[in-house]
Amino acid sequence: MSWIRSYESIRDFDFETEVAVVGFGGAGGCAALEARRAGRSVMLFERSSGAGGSTALSACEMYLGGNGGTALQKALGIEDTSENFRAYLDACFGNNCDPDRVSMFVDGAAQHFDWMEALGIRYNRSLFSGRDVVAMTGDSLQFSGNERVNWFAKRSKPVPRAHLAADADHNGGQVVMAAVIRNVEEAGVDIRYDARATALIQDAHGAVRGLVVRMDNRDYTVRTSHGVILCAGGFIMNELMTRQHIPHLEGISTRHGNPGDMGDGILMGVAAGGQAINMGQAFFGIATYPPADLTYGILVNGNGQRFVAEDSYIARIGDAALKQPDGEIYMFIDNRHFDRPHYVQGIEIVAVGETVAEVEAEAGFTEGTLQHTVEFYNTHAAEGRDPLFDKAANWLEPFDTAPFALVSYRLADIKQTAFTLGGLDVLPTGEVVTPNERAPIPGLYAAGRTVAGIPRTGAGYASGMSVADVTFFGRAAGRQAAAAKPNNALPAGADAAEG
Amino acid sequence: MSWIRSYESIRDFDFETEVAVVGFGGAGGCAALEARRAGRSVMLFERSSGAGGSTALSACEMYLGGNGGTALQKALGIEDTSENFRAYLDACFGNNCDPDRVSMFVDGAAQHFDWMEALGIRYNRSLFSGRDVVAMTGDSLQFSGNERVNWFAKRSKPVPRAHLAADADHNGGQVVMAAVIRNVEEAGVDIRYDARATALIQDAHGAVRGLVVRMDNRDYTVRTSHGVILCAGGFIMNELMTRQHIPHLEGISTRHGNPGDMGDGILMGVAAGGQAINMGQAFFGIATYPPADLTYGILVNGNGQRFVAEDSYIARIGDAALKQPDGEIYMFIDNRHFDRPHYVQGIEIVAVGETVAEVEAEAGFTEGTLQHTVEFYNTHAAEGRDPLFDKAANWLEPFDTAPFALVSYRLADIKQTAFTLGGLDVLPTGEVVTPNERAPIPGLYAAGRTVAGIPRTGAGYASGMSVADVTFFGRAAGRQAAAAKPNNALPAGADAAEG
Repeated sequence: MSWIRSYESIRDFDFETEVAVVGFGGAGGCAALEARRAGRSVMLFERSSGAGGSTALSACEMYLGGNGGTALQKALGIEDTSENFRAYLDACFGNNCDPDRVSMFVDGAAQHFDWMEALGIRYNRSLFSGRDVVAMTGDSLQFSGNERVNWFAKRSKPVPRAHLAADADHNGGQVVMAAVIRNVEEAGVDIRYDARATALIQDAHGAVRGLVVRMDNRDYTVRTSHGVILCAGGFIMNELMTRQHIPHLEGISTRHGNPGDMGDGILMGVAAGGQAINMGQAFFGIATYPPADLTYGILVNGNGQRFVAEDSYIARIGDAALKQPDGEIYMFIDNRHFDRPHYVQGIEIVAVGETVAEVEAEAGFTEGTLQHTVEFYNTHAAEGRDPLFDKAANWLEPFDTAPFALVSYRLADIKQTAFTLGGLDVLPTGEVVTPNERAPIPGLYAAGRTVAGIPRTGAGYASGMSVADVTFFGRAAGRQAAAAKPNNALPAGADAAEG
Repeated sequence: MSWIRSYESIRDFDFETEVAVVGFGGAGGCAALEARRAGRSVMLFERSSGAGGSTALSACEMYLGGNGGTALQKALGIEDTSENFRAYLDACFGNNCDPDRVSMFVDGAAQHFDWMEALGIRYNRSLFSGRDVVAMTGDSLQFSGNERVNWFAKRSKPVPRAHLAADADHNGGQVVMAAVIRNVEEAGVDIRYDARATALIQDAHGAVRGLVVRMDNRDYTVRTSHGVILCAGGFIMNELMTRQHIPHLEGISTRHGNPGDMGDGILMGVAAGGQAINMGQAFFGIATYPPADLTYGILVNGNGQRFVAEDSYIARIGDAALKQPDGEIYMFIDNRHFDRPHYVQGIEIVAVGETVAEVEAEAGFTEGTLQHTVEFYNTHAAEGRDPLFDKAANWLEPFDTAPFALVSYRLADIKQTAFTLGGLDVLPTGEVVTPNERAPIPGLYAAGRTVAGIPRTGAGYASGMSVADVTFFGRAAGRQAAAAKPNNALPAGADAAEG
C-alpha cells in the first residue's frame, strides 16, 4: 500500500476544502477549531465512529504554567515564571528536548489555559497538594510529575501544573473532549466519521495538496488549498511497529490508546518526505502509588539494590525499572505503611517476616543484600535524608513495624501501560520538515502523538504533558495552515496537462 | 533537497548498468563482487576518494560460526552448532532480533568464512584465549564478546567466533578491505570515486530504476535494470540525526566512522518508501580492558553500587553504564591488579588509600556505600562466586593489597566511541521493505550499517558482529539484485510518453 497519490494523476476531486484534518482527538479537534475560527473551510476525518481519540481515554490533566502562572495558578497565589517552567522541562528531557518547541510552549501555555476554559470547560480554583496520579478530590490543580523530587526541585522551584477539569475524576478526557467536540461542531467544521485517510496527495514539486479518504468502502479524493494536518495519534496499537521501535516493552506492557493509534499519520508524513524521530521512546509507568503511603516503601532490584527515588512519578519509576537486570522489581515495606496499590493488578507478596533477614531468606535474595539496603536506608531515614537517591524527607521513615514484606512488581507479571512518544519531526508551528535541512513540506502539518512533542522520555514525563502538548500544538498547526499561502493556482488536472 | 527523482521525467541517462552499488566499504564491495560474479554489469559509486568505508577503520574481526564450525574453528577442534550460535545471538539481542535474518546468518556464516578466505585473506589456525578487544598475538580466532560471561554461558556454550586476518592487529580492516578491493577491481566492476549518490530514480509504480550521482560538480543519471544497492554506511557523522535519534550519547561519546557515515543511504531508502528502525540503538563501549587484569576491578556508580559483570564486553559495560544516574562511573581496584587502561584516555585517579574507608571518604562517597560493596564482594569472591552479577570465577579475587584506588570513568570525561545500529528495515536478502506490509520496493536493496542488521544493541554486541553482518548480507544483496527480473522493458523516456 502506498501512502502517496500523485496530484497530477487526479482529474477530478470528490471534495474541495481549504484545510483537511486527519483524526478527531485532542490535537485534531483543536487544529480544526483554530483553522475554522480563522475563517477557513475545514473538513475533519475520523476513522472511528465517534470523536475523542486517545485524549478522551486520558484523565486529561493539562500540564500548563509559565508567564507568571495560569489563571488558575494565579488565583491560588502560585507563581510560575516561564524560566522556572522551562528549567523544569529541560530537567525532564535533557538532550531529547526540542528547544524551539519548548520556548513556544512555555511562552503560550498560560494563555492556552484561558483558551481551554473559554471552550466551556470548568476548572475549580482549588489545589490538591497530595500525591496521586489523578486527584480524585474535585480540586483542579495538582502536582502530577517529579516536581517535588529533590533532583528536580534543585533545578526548578516545585509548582503544581496539572490542570484537571471540574466534574471529572478519571474521565477528565471525556469532559474536555465533550467541550472540544461541541465547539468544533458549532464552528461549522465538516466532520466525517468512519473516514480513514489512506494516502496524501502530493504534487510533482513535493507539495501536499490533499488526501485520499476511505468512506463507505470507496476512496474519495479531497483537494486542499491550505494544507493537511495529520493528527492521527501514535503507534502503540501497531504490533509490528512497536516490535520494531520499542521492542524493549514487548511482553512487559499493555498498550494504552485508541484502536486508531496505528501509526498511519507518522507513516504518511514520512512517505511525503518527513522524518520520524524519537521512535524508541515511550511512556511506561509503574503505578506504585496511590495510595501515597506506598511511597514510604523502597524499590529494589533482584540484587536488593535501590535504584530510584521512590517519590518519583510513575513513568520515572518505570524508566528506572527498565534499567534493572531482567525486569526483577520489588518493593520492601513495613506493616505501618503497607496497603494494596490501587492501580497495579496482580502484585504478589513474595515474602513476609518478623525481621528483614527472614524476608530476605524467604524471598531467596542473597544473604546480606536486602538487609544491608534496609539498614542503610533506615539509618539515614532516621536523620531525614536519603544520600543515595535523595527521596524527599517527608517520605523518609525507618522501617520499624513488623511484619515486613517484599512485594513483587516483576515487569512481566504486572504488565503496566505504555504509549509511544516518537513521531514526525515538526517545527513548533506544526510544519512537517525534511531530514537534514528541516525544510517544511508545503501543505503538510502534524500535531498530537503523530509528532515527537514536548514529552520525549518516560524519565521526565508528567501526567498532563501529552494532552497539553497535543491541544496547544494542535491549535498552532491549525493557525499555521489557515494562514498559509493558498496552493490553488491551478485547477485539478491542469498540472497534468501542463506537465 | 529531494532524495527522489522521477524516472518518467528523465529523457536520457548518462549511464546504463545492470546493478549500481552506493558505497565501497565492506558491504558495498561484497555486494558489487557478488553481482559482478553473477554476470551483471556493476557500477560502484564511492563518495570519498578511496575505498574502505568504516570497515577499513575497524579491526575487522568477523563474528562467524554455526554449522558445526567454520574451517578455522574446526581446525582448532572447536565445535559450534547453528543452534548454539543462534542461542547466543538470541541471548544478545532478545526482542530486538530479526529472527529471519538471524536464521540466514547462522546457516551461512561458516561458508562465508571460506568465501572471505578465498578472496586471499589469510587466517592463522591458532586461538587467542585471553581477554582483549583485539588479539595482538597473531592468532586468528578469539572470544570477542560476552561468550564467557556466565549470564550468556548459561544460555549458549561459549565458543570463540571472532576471525582475525593474519598479518594484522588493529589494522585488520585494511588487510581485509585490500583483498576485497583487489577482487572487485579484478572482477571488472566499474568503480567511480568522488562520486556521491544524491537521489534515487523511482518510477510512477514505485520501482527504483536508477540513481543520480554527483561527480565533478555535475549530476549524472544512472539507469539500472536490476537494482540499486545502498551500502552507504550509518549516520554517526550526521550531527543533527544523532541528536534526533541517539541524544543520550550527546556530550559523552566520540563518533566512530568514516566521514561518509551521514545517513544518506537511510534517508534515500526511507524516501523511496522504506522504514528506518532501531534508530535509537548504538554501539557505545567503555574499554575497561585491556589490560585484562583490570577485569579484577569492580565497577560502581556514584552510589557505590555495582551494576554489571565486569568480565562483560566493552559495549555491554557501556550499555550498563548508560543506565546509571548521571553518568557517574568508577572502578575500584587494589594495587595488585591495577594497571593503566590501554584505550581509555583521561582516566583520573579519584582517591587512593590504605583502607577502603579512606578511599570512600576521599572520593566523597557516602560513608558505608563503597565499604559495603567491597566487603560484600570480597566475602563472596573468596568463595569463588559473585551472587550479584555472576562474574566468572576466574576474575574473582578479594581485594587485599593496599593501596586501594578509585578510578574515574565518568562518561562525560572519557568520551568513549559510538556508532549507530539503526537503519533500513530489509529482508535478509537485502530487499528494502515498506512499513506494515514489509513489501519489497522493486529495484531497491541495502546492506551494511545503512540497515538494521544482526547487531542491534550495545548490550549484546561483540567485536566483529558488524563487519560479519555487512559482508555476509552485502553478498546476499548483490546476489539478490543480480537474480532479479530486469526492469528494462521500456527505454528511457518511453514511460513519460506513454504516461
